Amino acid sequence: MKHQIKRQLVELIVDLVCAAQKDERDILSIPVGVSNRHVHLCRRDMDILFGSGYEMQVLRELTQEGYYAARETVVVAGPGGAVGGVRLLGPLRAHTQIELLLTDEKTLGVKIPLRDSGDLGLSRPVTLIGPAGTVSNDTGVMAALRHIHMNTGEAVTLGLRDGDLVCAETQGERSVVFQKIRIRVGNFRTELHLDVDEANACGLKHGDKVRIICERKD
Amino acid sequence: MKHQIKRQLVELIVDLVCAAQKDERDILSIPVGVSNRHVHLCRRDMDILFGSGYEMQVLRELTQEGYYAARETVVVAGPGGAVGGVRLLGPLRAHTQIELLLTDEKTLGVKIPLRDSGDLGLSRPVTLIGPAGTVSNDTGVMAALRHIHMNTGEAVTLGLRDGDLVCAETQGERSVVFQKIRIRVGNFRTELHLDVDEANACGLKHGDKVRIICERKD
Repeated sequence: MKHQIKRQLVELIVDLVCAAQKDERDILSIPVGVSNRHVHLCRRDMDILFGSGYEMQVLRELTQEGYYAARETVVVAGPGGAVGGVRLLGPLRAHTQIELLLTDEKTLGVKIPLRDSGDLGLSRPVTLIGPAGTVSNDTGVMAALRHIHMNTGEAVTLGLRDGDLVCAETQGERSVVFQKIRIRVGNFRTELHLDVDEANACGLKHGDKVRIICERKD
Repeated sequence: MKHQIKRQLVELIVDLVCAAQKDERDILSIPVGVSNRHVHLCRRDMDILFGSGYEMQVLRELTQEGYYAARETVVVAGPGGAVGGVRLLGPLRAHTQIELLLTDEKTLGVKIPLRDSGDLGLSRPVTLIGPAGTVSNDTGVMAALRHIHMNTGEAVTLGLRDGDLVCAETQGERSVVFQKIRIRVGNFRTELHLDVDEANACGLKHGDKVRIICERKD
């Protein structure tokens, strides 16, 4: 009898701890923005590819205020082949950044490094082809690491700081938990940014919701 | 003082429960087989695509005994476009099965259903094009749900049964936990089967290891 009570007590404690962990880990549900391969150009490269002083036309506004998908696209080429119709995003940046998919490694015949957006490390060069010219680029070529743009107010409420890492769980038959997602705090609409490979791997579409489930400190 | 001891006791219990959960969840490490888009043909479709009585040539043996990648490839076409170089896998099957990537939805212009391999449900038709002819197929078109081929002996040791669902954790900067992975028990070499989209989403290559971390009953 004593043994049975002890066992029941242990089971009760386990249930309580599990429930407490669950509460702690269940922070919030946020929408997903799915990025296809795209290019941010600097003024110099824009002039070479589209002509001196060329201005992009807005195709549609993006979720983050002030950013847009342009009507203009370029071809991205490597030693193994090319991918066409790669959309430009505006506005112009100080440095050109070419965000590709790991799926493109085989087509282009280049190793695409995983990097944080803005990290302009060296890579094997790829060539951008526009209607007015061609430019070869060996910095800013990447598959971007996933990240969450988080509104400053929400970050304060949730006790999250710029640079923190969290996990996010998706739903459905192909559900996954994405780990090591970097939080970027600023004047943003809160949104998880994934690329097309990541979205396809779990059957997510642009605008679907994911659940932020735990904070990671590593 | 009493309060402090109580708090320490609670912390100790939490630590013990967490450690116990961790032990329980850490089952084993297994290799990954990454599948690109591929086609299993039936005799009838082989005859139409490659000529009556045609026999596939072996390009390389696959991990699972008796299975091979053939030298022959076909074009898979839909209303939006086509994907070439889609490899045949041997041996022949009773029914043709066309395993594509969700990445191909945009290229082909068809919705690709997520299905368990062998589930020959209806879908929008795709066309297979071979050197001798063309065949249209509206069954067996799928993006295959991930699964683990598990050796019968290992399954018994681990207390896993055919049809059980488990999770698997990957390592690296893009690490994920794949959930709802179906266990298939048989005369197999134990291996997690993912497709190229899933592998790219977490930066995995063929032969990398993943950690099976928990059993799911849902």
